[in-house]
Amino acid sequence: MGGMTPSPSDAPNPQQVMAMLSASQQTAALVAAIQLDMFTALSDGPLTAAALGKKIGAAERGTRSLADYLCIPGLLHKQEDRYSLSPTAQVFLNRRSPAAIADAAGWWDFIAQQTSAERMLAVVRAGGNVEGIAPPEAWVIFARSMGVIARLPARVIAEKIAAPLLAQGGKVLDVAGGHGEYGIAVARQSPQADVTILDGAPVLAVARENADKAGLGARYHTLAGSIIPGSEGEVELKPEYNLILVTGFLHMFSARTNQAIMAKVKRALAPGGAVIVEDFIPNPDRISPPMAAAFSLTMLFGTAEGDSYTEAEFRQMFTAAGFSRFERHQLNELPMNAMLLRP
Amino acid sequence: MGGMTPSPSDAPNPQQVMAMLSASQQTAALVAAIQLDMFTALSDGPLTAAALGKKIGAAERGTRSLADYLCIPGLLHKQEDRYSLSPTAQVFLNRRSPAAIADAAGWWDFIAQQTSAERMLAVVRAGGNVEGIAPPEAWVIFARSMGVIARLPARVIAEKIAAPLLAQGGKVLDVAGGHGEYGIAVARQSPQADVTILDGAPVLAVARENADKAGLGARYHTLAGSIIPGSEGEVELKPEYNLILVTGFLHMFSARTNQAIMAKVKRALAPGGAVIVEDFIPNPDRISPPMAAAFSLTMLFGTAEGDSYTEAEFRQMFTAAGFSRFERHQLNELPMNAMLLRP
Repeated sequence: MGGMTPSPSDAPNPQQVMAMLSASQQTAALVAAIQLDMFTALSDGPLTAAALGKKIGAAERGTRSLADYLCIPGLLHKQEDRYSLSPTAQVFLNRRSPAAIADAAGWWDFIAQQTSAERMLAVVRAGGNVEGIAPPEAWVIFARSMGVIARLPARVIAEKIAAPLLAQGGKVLDVAGGHGEYGIAVARQSPQADVTILDGAPVLAVARENADKAGLGARYHTLAGSIIPGSEGEVELKPEYNLILVTGFLHMFSARTNQAIMAKVKRALAPGGAVIVEDFIPNPDRISPPMAAAFSLTMLFGTAEGDSYTEAEFRQMFTAAGFSRFERHQLNELPMNAMLLRP
Repeated sequence: MGGMTPSPSDAPNPQQVMAMLSASQQTAALVAAIQLDMFTALSDGPLTAAALGKKIGAAERGTRSLADYLCIPGLLHKQEDRYSLSPTAQVFLNRRSPAAIADAAGWWDFIAQQTSAERMLAVVRAGGNVEGIAPPEAWVIFARSMGVIARLPARVIAEKIAAPLLAQGGKVLDVAGGHGEYGIAVARQSPQADVTILDGAPVLAVARENADKAGLGARYHTLAGSIIPGSEGEVELKPEYNLILVTGFLHMFSARTNQAIMAKVKRALAPGGAVIVEDFIPNPDRISPPMAAAFSLTMLFGTAEGDSYTEAEFRQMFTAAGFSRFERHQLNELPMNAMLLRP
């Protein structure tokens, strides 16, 4: 079931083609398993298909078939007809795990429903999604689903990059923060920092909820509007921020728009301030590493002019926007990178 | 982009989860590339995204993004901004290749459109697709699309298994033959054989077309109806066939139904006759090899009672139906196997 994994030999391999053509089944199977909470049901120990099915309210035959399917890539393990969690499932899919990203299934299920070869063909022909970026209601689904994914890089950014900059406190702006997890992680890690999240009003409600759950109270502010120069609802920003977070955002726009966004971000910095940009960054070949490279097509499909930019492309935008210092940071084993910028 | 491929280490790996949740993009991308005929366009030699886009009528940006995406699993290669075909794409996706399976994209596109997590969850709960097997129009799409896939195993079966049985000619029945490729391959390989294909009337038109293209003329007969005992349109069969082909069929039904089908098949054999069954056969663990194992979920999703049966399960059905001799055959590098049965 090669899918996106290169064929081990260079011999013509029809199975690679068949596996890729049938890949839509993978998304449906994993989302269904998450919705049935199959992984949490296995967190107390191995179960047979009959016992597991009883626990999740599904037929033995269906449970066996789905659990076997999840054993193929190793998400579950099977020994003498009993299924158990792989380390990946234990940590990331079992809802009792603090690192569970099971909620993220909602976003990919939404994307899968939007995805078709017909629409893909149309955007490839046109060179982008002529209907433009997702409608506002999509961003609420995104904010509700993807916060759990964002928590992984947010924690690394907050601890390793932001905390040293905010040792004396400071004002932080979380640009288009959506679920708010980046700004929230920074506020938790740096107790003297004061965080403002800027985004459309519908998603700010999600961020506010998340900030309240994190107990941030009066240190957390919301600002409804858009950072994009010339866009509807563009906000004015004073040069008062010690740190500005631009995470998972620039891939939605053209290099030209990003340059304008980043110039505006620079003008909003207080003296000595810095910017953290987080994004997928493919290698110069644009075909590796896999997830960062594949994200280019995701942006072609989902946005009018977005892309997965190489480091050289990002540096060009940042330089044109007035930044002269650039540091790139790996975020543990995650597919996205952070970039620390200063004027 | 692990998808269905096991994680290389046993460390918890969030990227494996993300890759699998986003796998629906793989199907859409490959179907779109086939529909744009990107692979045939590259069969004359490497091209840049601009030149390739011009040739397939697509924007450079869209072409670059899709071609890069197809480089990730190695279906295309990229060198200094020029894309070229991998051996797999050259042989199986380039429409100028005699082994091209590009047409099969139509079927998987249809399946992808039917696939959703919501439906998957419902069939897992119910233990099968309560709406039953696909409607008749689906089988016409199947027959029109999947003939190209069937040609690969059909040729191996015709040459290695059927030909020695038909050295003196004989009557062949192709049960639920759909596109007809198995019976057609047998008729071409064994010029004294006389082939009858049994299936629903709508798909028989496709088989007839294919047989006419193969120049089989009066040696090829169609018989409209069903082999399934007790079903609407069940046909009576005389004990006159020297070889009966039951290919890619039994996975759609329960073991009980298969036993009844195979008993009827046995009764239709002339003295000394044999049966060739072809199907996916997972190992006893049911989680390997990948494609045969994954097909169990495909059948759960698409049929009321179908499954991907192990060899032991098949042997039990065949024995109960009155077959006493069994030989299993690999079909080159293909994911399905053939089984030769005699009473």
